[in-house]
Amino acid sequence: MTEPSPLTSAEARALLPARTDGPDVTVRRLWDPVAGGEAPADAVVVLPRLAADAWARWRVAGVAAVVAAIGDVDALADVHAGDPARWAVADTRLALARLSRRLDPRPAVAEVGVHASAVVDESARLGARVAVGPLAVVGADAILEDDVVLGAGAVVGAGARVGAGSVLRERVVIEDGVVVGRRCWLQAGAVIGGDGFGFAPGPRGAERIHHLGTVVLGDDVEVGANACIDRATLGATVVGPRSKIDNLVQIGHNVRIGADVLIAGQTGVAGSTAIGDRVVIGGAAGVADHVEIGADARIAGGAGVTKSVPAGDTWGGYPAQPMRRWVRERYLIGRLEAIWAFVKGRA
Amino acid sequence: MTEPSPLTSAEARALLPARTDGPDVTVRRLWDPVAGGEAPADAVVVLPRLAADAWARWRVAGVAAVVAAIGDVDALADVHAGDPARWAVADTRLALARLSRRLDPRPAVAEVGVHASAVVDESARLGARVAVGPLAVVGADAILEDDVVLGAGAVVGAGARVGAGSVLRERVVIEDGVVVGRRCWLQAGAVIGGDGFGFAPGPRGAERIHHLGTVVLGDDVEVGANACIDRATLGATVVGPRSKIDNLVQIGHNVRIGADVLIAGQTGVAGSTAIGDRVVIGGAAGVADHVEIGADARIAGGAGVTKSVPAGDTWGGYPAQPMRRWVRERYLIGRLEAIWAFVKGRA
Amino acid sequence: MTEPSPLTSAEARALLPARTDGPDVTVRRLWDPVAGGEAPADAVVVLPRLAADAWARWRVAGVAAVVAAIGDVDALADVHAGDPARWAVADTRLALARLSRRLDPRPAVAEVGVHASAVVDESARLGARVAVGPLAVVGADAILEDDVVLGAGAVVGAGARVGAGSVLRERVVIEDGVVVGRRCWLQAGAVIGGDGFGFAPGPRGAERIHHLGTVVLGDDVEVGANACIDRATLGATVVGPRSKIDNLVQIGHNVRIGADVLIAGQTGVAGSTAIGDRVVIGGAAGVADHVEIGADARIAGGAGVTKSVPAGDTWGGYPAQPMRRWVRERYLIGRLEAIWAFVKGRA
Repeated sequence: MTEPSPLTSAEARALLPARTDGPDVTVRRLWDPVAGGEAPADAVVVLPRLAADAWARWRVAGVAAVVAAIGDVDALADVHAGDPARWAVADTRLALARLSRRLDPRPAVAEVGVHASAVVDESARLGARVAVGPLAVVGADAILEDDVVLGAGAVVGAGARVGAGSVLRERVVIEDGVVVGRRCWLQAGAVIGGDGFGFAPGPRGAERIHHLGTVVLGDDVEVGANACIDRATLGATVVGPRSKIDNLVQIGHNVRIGADVLIAGQTGVAGSTAIGDRVVIGGAAGVADHVEIGADARIAGGAGVTKSVPAGDTWGGYPAQPMRRWVRERYLIGRLEAIWAFVKGRA
Repeated sequence: MTEPSPLTSAEARALLPARTDGPDVTVRRLWDPVAGGEAPADAVVVLPRLAADAWARWRVAGVAAVVAAIGDVDALADVHAGDPARWAVADTRLALARLSRRLDPRPAVAEVGVHASAVVDESARLGARVAVGPLAVVGADAILEDDVVLGAGAVVGAGARVGAGSVLRERVVIEDGVVVGRRCWLQAGAVIGGDGFGFAPGPRGAERIHHLGTVVLGDDVEVGANACIDRATLGATVVGPRSKIDNLVQIGHNVRIGADVLIAGQTGVAGSTAIGDRVVIGGAAGVADHVEIGADARIAGGAGVTKSVPAGDTWGGYPAQPMRRWVRERYLIGRLEAIWAFVKGRA
Repeated sequence: MTEPSPLTSAEARALLPARTDGPDVTVRRLWDPVAGGEAPADAVVVLPRLAADAWARWRVAGVAAVVAAIGDVDALADVHAGDPARWAVADTRLALARLSRRLDPRPAVAEVGVHASAVVDESARLGARVAVGPLAVVGADAILEDDVVLGAGAVVGAGARVGAGSVLRERVVIEDGVVVGRRCWLQAGAVIGGDGFGFAPGPRGAERIHHLGTVVLGDDVEVGANACIDRATLGATVVGPRSKIDNLVQIGHNVRIGADVLIAGQTGVAGSTAIGDRVVIGGAAGVADHVEIGADARIAGGAGVTKSVPAGDTWGGYPAQPMRRWVRERYLIGRLEAIWAFVKGRA
């Protein structure tokens, strides 16, 4: 852990962005408003959007600054008069994201350079300020662009390319030839580029289809811990820029995921399916192979998508259907007791 | 593998605990009563609770001792007269647990000390009898208390703390600052303390919320292979003492799990949810974010919990509901054929 | 990447097998018929079975050879007259599998021998042409038969045995005593032989049942990335020859899987369940403990199997039931709107 440099009210105005009321302060740490204990004097708390009469319940006394939604700041001043600086923002969640990044005490790079215990092939090319952690492995002809960080035990296969500023946490595996964009963040244990699950029945059992394609992750993609993205049979499995994939998600071979997609934990997407831009998929959902989920569609957690979903639709259930129909179906199932009584009474 | 020291009838009386009938014997290995082959003369078998007439089917001839429920031991003596010692116990499953531990031929510690290939930061503090396996990594300021065992390739992040007697199997990752209690057992590939899946929509796509909190595992917690437990946004994701989490489970950020909880394989618990003491969750269930599962509740495998569950309740289905209602709903759906015939006949 | 040796029409006749029409050619790479760009002159494409009038849409101009189903080759000749060799096969998918294997540019073995950074116990026995990758670990008394390949960071436990020609990709963990057959392929991050999830309630919380059994994988078994197969309590968890298990699948302790089984991604099979030969299970399905799935049965993706399934049956839904009944049930649920209108009109 390292102490982040102090953040002033002036910097906060530009970073969040915020209108700043009250004293000019400097903060060094984000504080949890629901945590017990005394807040340190160099802390800032971010309050969620709340009814005015809820402010009194928040433990903000003692902190240097409070971040709240623009409409809430006046109510806040009434209850917690005087001391903390009040930083009014349009979007408290975005403010939280930016403060959390700015005040993260964990250095992305413990130390620039190649750790003595790492195994880096002499044909690999490393950019400026690259950090290769202990016991990481970089294969032949791999390319790590500037500012790439490999955590302990991460493996980058032969001919793979990792874009500038990307972070591969502990034990991530990037198989041969995989392409990772810039500023990606891959959490521990993720496996990118394993062979897809494709077999052909042969005279002596299933014969594996070797997957000769690759995986291409766009810029600013994030992949969760122990998630898996399989390489394409031919061509590439693609994850578009800024898409975020959670822990233990499975992305099958040949899948194409658009930009700004969010896929929550343990969801599976089977082979050759296409997912449009800005699609949001809840946790533990399943999407069948060879279907298409249109742009801006939303899939409920736990849904089982067995056919294509039109752009902009919200679907849920298993088999998945438009959310309105699924809710209506659940309502009608709830009427079964009355229906059954009616039928029994007249049969 | 190492030969465990022999276990005598006298020791068994105290360990299981058991009432011992028949000859005084010593045993060295647990034997599978349904396995083929000849049982070795130094074996003990544990028989599940069974009807008396089932005893004859068990292959217990040749073993040194048979463990059975108190009420079953007499029936056993009738069928397998004479030779094996008979150890009568109140709980055969508990007896199996204790015998399996006592006779485990796998040493928890292959060798005490730090393997020459491990990378241990000089600022890390290691207690007595710590074993750090080949190619393990221990970060700056990490603490390994007495008798900790790190398997091959395990990674303990900077500032993390592992309590006395805990075992981290191969390739476990404990991220920076995570706290592991005493006598915990973490199976291969588990990732504890990855950043949670939290983003804020920003002008140029989702911005990641850096998770500045941590994970705290209580004493005697177990976590399965390739399972993931995310760190909190602020504060801590908590798993209470003696709770057991199976393979490939996902625990989201800010989740609070009580004591003595059991969560079976591939279940997912989304962010900020609270799970009370002694809750049991079956495999492949999903629990939505920000809900509460009360103490002693039971959730069926495959259930999708979308709202809070009262203490002591048993719920199932998706969306999950009280088990009695779910069973009734399944019954009524089974009546739909008759209902439809009735309606068609009168419409 | 390495250039595979060229494949001639004559070799293709024997390998696929194929009837070859048109010029004698040599090919070096498989090409994706739906990819953009110009096909190189040494490429072969495999066309799926299609209506004759669809041929014109495929980009096969420029390639050296086209593989198509026997009945399609004539239509192909009409549309793409002249230049590419036409290889007629009975099964295009099998042809794809064999060509993909033959033309895979990724060497299974980067280099034969033990990498200087690997940690191999001196009591381990290594066959001919074994390749142990960087930072792999081989425990005491482990056996690697001829032509075994261990990827970077793979771990083979004490007393484990890996059969001839098997490949363990990056970071695979084979726990102590596990037996892997010949020509198996284990993808990155798979964990074979972790302790099963078995506990006995004791006076001071759940006591773990140490799993003293093992896992036995038959010949030609494949296991996906980050999948987990738990060792048996006693005896062995068994996966029969030629069975294929996808990414993130969980196989519980004591499970017995037959030959030629296919289990798709994220499916879970709970403890002590038996799965017969040639069973096919879709993705994200769950199978309860202690049930039996008969030979040749098929289980739909997302199904939740709570009781035994007869041989040859196809089941789906949750709780799973014969597919015909599940489809009928879905149909009847779709009639609920009409049923409810009828009941409301007469109540």
